[in-house]
Amino acid sequence: MNFHILTLFPDMVEQGLNTSIIGRAKDRGLLSIEAVNIRDYAFNKHQSVDDYPYGGGAGMLMQAEPIYQCYKAVCEKAGISLDDPQAKRPRVVYLSPQGETFSQKMAEELAGEEELVLLCGHYEGVDERVLEEIVTDYVSIGDYVLTGGELPAMVMVDAISRLVPGVLHNDVSAEFESFQDNLLEYPQYSRPETWHGKQVPPILLSGHHANIEKWRREQSIIRTAQKRPDLLKEAVLTEKERKFLDEYIKNNLQS
Amino acid sequence: MNFHILTLFPDMVEQGLNTSIIGRAKDRGLLSIEAVNIRDYAFNKHQSVDDYPYGGGAGMLMQAEPIYQCYKAVCEKAGISLDDPQAKRPRVVYLSPQGETFSQKMAEELAGEEELVLLCGHYEGVDERVLEEIVTDYVSIGDYVLTGGELPAMVMVDAISRLVPGVLHNDVSAEFESFQDNLLEYPQYSRPETWHGKQVPPILLSGHHANIEKWRREQSIIRTAQKRPDLLKEAVLTEKERKFLDEYIKNNLQS
Repeated sequence: MNFHILTLFPDMVEQGLNTSIIGRAKDRGLLSIEAVNIRDYAFNKHQSVDDYPYGGGAGMLMQAEPIYQCYKAVCEKAGISLDDPQAKRPRVVYLSPQGETFSQKMAEELAGEEELVLLCGHYEGVDERVLEEIVTDYVSIGDYVLTGGELPAMVMVDAISRLVPGVLHNDVSAEFESFQDNLLEYPQYSRPETWHGKQVPPILLSGHHANIEKWRREQSIIRTAQKRPDLLKEAVLTEKERKFLDEYIKNNLQS
Repeated sequence: MNFHILTLFPDMVEQGLNTSIIGRAKDRGLLSIEAVNIRDYAFNKHQSVDDYPYGGGAGMLMQAEPIYQCYKAVCEKAGISLDDPQAKRPRVVYLSPQGETFSQKMAEELAGEEELVLLCGHYEGVDERVLEEIVTDYVSIGDYVLTGGELPAMVMVDAISRLVPGVLHNDVSAEFESFQDNLLEYPQYSRPETWHGKQVPPILLSGHHANIEKWRREQSIIRTAQKRPDLLKEAVLTEKERKFLDEYIKNNLQS
């Protein structure tokens, strides 16, 4: 899978995605992440990419043409000619608070693309016409206001990359798997047995795997009930576990 | 405001926050962002910070003590002694899919803190006991699964920094202000007047400021109705605008 990030801050994006997991996946050829500098496609000698908005108002706008040229170069590099009306164009995500909220489901869907272009806005925004021309998906990573589209693009690349077959080994990041069966992760403990007066729950030292497994599932259920009850509707539980949950709610959360 | 990010990837965090706005704010002394390497507080010569989880299971866990020592060092540097039970401890955010969902409101609230510590998890997760001991806030930036806590921490720092008085000038990023009055931003256009056959809406060339202002408000209202109707309940509208909205919905969204 090839990610192409159109940005005014390519260094920031590349450095910020240099984690061990993504880095290894790149080295193994499972994915490529290319941050392309929109400024390289400015059409004037000052490499400026912004201009005043029509109709007035504070601030500058990113102009249509440098973004379009940058997009065109990325397409051509991927073997896609924009002159060919039959050619399948890549999906282009514009990071914007106006977009649909990013979710694990959307990540799964996008992980099926071969080429994914992410366009990072800055300044006051972007000339509407280039958005109409190239953008296929408007995405927001959450209801908060950020300086630009770079961090959201990095978040999307990270979440999607993990889902590309082969990127994750078994040894990785189960905590962050929390949403996989709609239960939150159980608490975990490592050495020493006593730390700051706090003991590891004895059951974890028992060596009885079935009991440990049962305890962990119950802890997951309790946590989800406490912190994210909205997830429980979709949680995959056995009948016994469902009973345990109902009991727990009755005794602890409805008093 | 001082941000302290406890992480295994300090370079990634520092590079990834090197945008123009945050960088300028740092230069002007309005805020400091320090990424502290948890590995520097490992208590063994291999600088290892992880170990197997009690009770078995795949993967490694971040141990309690290096994180605690790292936290302690950050507190001491900020003049807070953990030995003094009266001392006001800093807020410590643990980035976790289990947390409360980050929002603009939470960003506003956290922008009032002087010191803010962000703890980035990795591997399978973190020994529960150190979380109990130091963490005050569990925060998730959204319902998707990421490789670690670094990108979410960067997102939070970015969103909160913008709200620190003096960081933003008027000339910045109104597009990303979208949530300020619960309306999405209107479309914007810059030179040239015609691009790829698309015209700038003539009203923006009219020079009639009141009409332009009215058009922009209406565009914001239309977009919000189309894309984020959930925001409209809280939107601040004049009676005339409310009428416009009702008409628009009747004619375009209920047919």
